[in-house]
Amino acid sequence: MAIPDTDIYPTATGRALETVKNHQNSSEADIIFYAGWFCPFVQRVWIALEEKGISYEYREENPYHKDPEFLKISPKGLVPAIIYQGQPIHESLVILEFLEEAFPNTKPLLPSSPYARSQIRLALDHISKSILPSFFKLLQSQDTHTQSLARESLYKAFSQFGEGIKGDYWAGEEISLADIALMPWAGRLYILEENREFDIERTGEKFKGWAQRIIKHPAMQNTSSEREHYAQIYGRYLCDEAQSEAAKATRNGGVIP
Amino acid sequence: MAIPDTDIYPTATGRALETVKNHQNSSEADIIFYAGWFCPFVQRVWIALEEKGISYEYREENPYHKDPEFLKISPKGLVPAIIYQGQPIHESLVILEFLEEAFPNTKPLLPSSPYARSQIRLALDHISKSILPSFFKLLQSQDTHTQSLARESLYKAFSQFGEGIKGDYWAGEEISLADIALMPWAGRLYILEENREFDIERTGEKFKGWAQRIIKHPAMQNTSSEREHYAQIYGRYLCDEAQSEAAKATRNGGVIP
Ligand SMILES: N[C@@H](CCC(=O)N[C@@H](CS)C(=O)NCC(=O)O)C(=O)O
Ligand SMILES: N[C@@H](CCC(=O)N[C@@H](CS)C(=O)NCC(=O)O)C(=O)O
Repeated sequence: MAIPDTDIYPTATGRALETVKNHQNSSEADIIFYAGWFCPFVQRVWIALEEKGISYEYREENPYHKDPEFLKISPKGLVPAIIYQGQPIHESLVILEFLEEAFPNTKPLLPSSPYARSQIRLALDHISKSILPSFFKLLQSQDTHTQSLARESLYKAFSQFGEGIKGDYWAGEEISLADIALMPWAGRLYILEENREFDIERTGEKFKGWAQRIIKHPAMQNTSSEREHYAQIYGRYLCDEAQSEAAKATRNGGVIP
Repeated sequence: MAIPDTDIYPTATGRALETVKNHQNSSEADIIFYAGWFCPFVQRVWIALEEKGISYEYREENPYHKDPEFLKISPKGLVPAIIYQGQPIHESLVILEFLEEAFPNTKPLLPSSPYARSQIRLALDHISKSILPSFFKLLQSQDTHTQSLARESLYKAFSQFGEGIKGDYWAGEEISLADIALMPWAGRLYILEENREFDIERTGEKFKGWAQRIIKHPAMQNTSSEREHYAQIYGRYLCDEAQSEAAKATRNGGVIP
């Protein structure tokens, strides 16, 4: 059976395409960025690179092809991955922490106090363990009962995230990894609103306000493609035909990689 | 129905008890450490505190009671949790990173190079996503087919961890968070050997050597209780009656919290 995920639209579009064009063949770049225009995990790293003003070369990689060359860089064949001084690193959250440490003179995305940093890492943990599994579950599940359970879990997980918000951004007046790690999914909530009776009013005032602000953030806008192209990808999730590792894990009750 | 997990043996025993006695009512301590003597996630933090020589007061907390006072410190009611300068922090991996940052003049458990640190965080990610779910699955599952699948996954996950080992310790000649995050489960492998036909020979030479060395580490020994008391706890997992959040997630195909 052909794997239809390999047929995804080949490049970014809209404002994301403009950003891609500004980061082509940059032989002097500090980071080679292996990306998929459609991928929310990629978008985390992309937003961080843009916010920090790190020089990078954007390389579109279709991770469903599992190109042997790419597997040397990212052993599970997942985007995002980066190469820094010849050394490959994968996993979006690991890359985000790495960028903080390897580029200390760029805009910080973690506060300086160890306690404040720990609170942001707790938010990241909550996103990984509670928000994303419920998001994918709601997206993929086909029967209304499972959808309803997933929707309630997602409302609860979003409102818990909301309770921690301390200002315009999660940690206060500065954007941090807590925002960036969730922004790509805030930007995809319309898919759940249009297809899964998701109601932003049920997530609490603080989360709702954050979500509505954050999707207007320039780095979010500049890394977002046109909706019609996301529709092709998410259509496969909505009918539970997607064959990504995350989709398979969600379907089979496994751990999202 | 009474929750039998609340009946666990109340205190540490053996060498762990000696360590506990040296850390009682330490009103000058930098860290208040909410611990359960039996808990592998607790043991991660305990080993780090011992290795770093941070002053701490050990407080035994039975997390199955969900004491309202404890829920203020650890919102999910899970151990470990710590209080530092009046501020509570939970989640073992978040606490480990916090200790590195809040006590920079103690023995480091992360190398200084950003790239080397990223590799350790990838190992932590692998432990959380691949090793622990397979470990709990093998421990709890009752039919031999599911056990056999979980056992194979666990061999594979251990040998992948093994491939990254660079010396006596995971990152080379110094102990790091990559070792500490997995040591408590290395110390519990005998339970799988005795009850689940787990064969250490199947994990690869590098993992096997590491596992055999690491369980003799002083901080591991000094935080370990007597086997008969672990037997009571793990007996409940082995017949799939445990009611911990991790046990319930494993049973229901959810995310281990
Ligand atoms: N945990 C990974 C997840 C990355 C991920 O799942 N990326 C997807 C695209 S959104 C991918 O590469 N999928 C290819 C596949 O599943 O085979 C991260 O945070 O970087
Ligand atoms: N992800 C947590 C897990 C901690 C955890 O599951 N602790 C167990 C004891 S080993 C607990 O407190 N269980 C109480 C419960 O499940 O209700 C961490 O890494 O700290």
